Amino acid sequence: MTYCVGMMLDKGLVLMSDTRTNSGVDNISVFRKMFYWSVPGDRIIALMTAGNLATTQAVISQLEERTKTPSERHNSLLEAPTMFQVAAEVGRLLRETIQNSQSDNGQNGEGRFTASIILCGQINGMEPRLFMIYPEGNFIEATSDTPFFQIGETKYGRPIILRGYERDMSFEDAVKLLMVSFDSTLKANLSVGMPLDVMVIARDGFGPLHVRRVHAEDAYFQSISSNWGNALKSAFDSLPDYSFGADREPPPANLELS
Amino acid sequence: MTYCVGMMLDKGLVLMSDTRTNSGVDNISVFRKMFYWSVPGDRIIALMTAGNLATTQAVISQLEERTKTPSERHNSLLEAPTMFQVAAEVGRLLRETIQNSQSDNGQNGEGRFTASIILCGQINGMEPRLFMIYPEGNFIEATSDTPFFQIGETKYGRPIILRGYERDMSFEDAVKLLMVSFDSTLKANLSVGMPLDVMVIARDGFGPLHVRRVHAEDAYFQSISSNWGNALKSAFDSLPDYSFGADREPPPANLELS
Repeated sequence: MTYCVGMMLDKGLVLMSDTRTNSGVDNISVFRKMFYWSVPGDRIIALMTAGNLATTQAVISQLEERTKTPSERHNSLLEAPTMFQVAAEVGRLLRETIQNSQSDNGQNGEGRFTASIILCGQINGMEPRLFMIYPEGNFIEATSDTPFFQIGETKYGRPIILRGYERDMSFEDAVKLLMVSFDSTLKANLSVGMPLDVMVIARDGFGPLHVRRVHAEDAYFQSISSNWGNALKSAFDSLPDYSFGADREPPPANLELS
Repeated sequence: MTYCVGMMLDKGLVLMSDTRTNSGVDNISVFRKMFYWSVPGDRIIALMTAGNLATTQAVISQLEERTKTPSERHNSLLEAPTMFQVAAEVGRLLRETIQNSQSDNGQNGEGRFTASIILCGQINGMEPRLFMIYPEGNFIEATSDTPFFQIGETKYGRPIILRGYERDMSFEDAVKLLMVSFDSTLKANLSVGMPLDVMVIARDGFGPLHVRRVHAEDAYFQSISSNWGNALKSAFDSLPDYSFGADREPPPANLELS
């Protein structure tokens, strides 16, 4: 199903995505879901995709104008005046790609080609920005109230992000937080799988500060995974004990109706 | 959406359920979802429901034969020879209730009346047993490999149960574990709400050892809720730090295709 998270910090942006793609449990593959474009000193734009792979690859290819020969290509994102307009362009492409597939397939195509995108980046002279783009082409933007977005299998990994996030946290702590979130999700949903892709974009960096592919045998990830289970157990043990006490209310009748 | 958990321990059974019922976000009510019947010294049978409230209440009412006047009522569960047959009977009633509503409502009723049930209990001379009953009327039984069942909004609260469960844990620790699981779920899904109902059934007790309704202002639950967030944060801080290190792989081209 995918799991991707984009997070805004005071210091910049942190992204993490899985790479498992499947058409059924007997057909799984590894495909990158994180993409970026940068013009040093001017801008960096990054996005992560969830949903139908043919849809999302077509969107990326169209963004890079891979329908044309290399010498004729021109990526309009690299000249858009603001990240808002980048989001609008990506949203338009996403919506059209989905609608074309659906109309080509009639009733058989109902709901099958959908996808969503997390988009973020910074253009020189403006603040870093983070968006979640819907298959309908519209989008919402992160704010200090909601400074991160998740797409795909979001539920297992959400509570720890909510509790661990601090806007002034370091990049390293943010990556650690996302790894814990991904670890819980990987354990719970087989359609989310390793390796993971990580990217850190520093405010005013206009390029990736840190890019890494985290494989299953990654020593750090494995230490997070094994230690987190123990840490949770300790945290649970540290909570105050429950006691039956005096039952203040008599056991109720079942429906209390006649 | 509901959240109910039934858990088997060496010592017996622990149950917890929420009470929020809604038909839309502007129409929420409190309804008990946990029911039990006991014959001292002979048997205790308890169940929790999720799904369409009219369906689940109809099942309970039929089990108690509330279609008849009090003097004519007879609860067949109280005489079934085994818990397996109790499960089969409850499953049959559940399936028939759903199918009747659906056939009465034609296409308009598609999928709207569904419900599921966690059933557990013990009959004298036999072991405690725990089942999850599907709307289709069939059911599965808990084993030592999978000693608990959840119905409703299961995802947020599942990881902590998986990590915290130990078959020889005390009843008090099990209730504490479920409260943590419910706390995460309550915070994440508005269709799950307090008060909560708790029941503990001791092996060979054939009656409830402990029954309690936990209201929002319950001092213990509030201490769990506030301490858990802090405990999680400490657990997170205790994990080894991440460091960027040397980027061993160059940032990849986006699709690596021409």
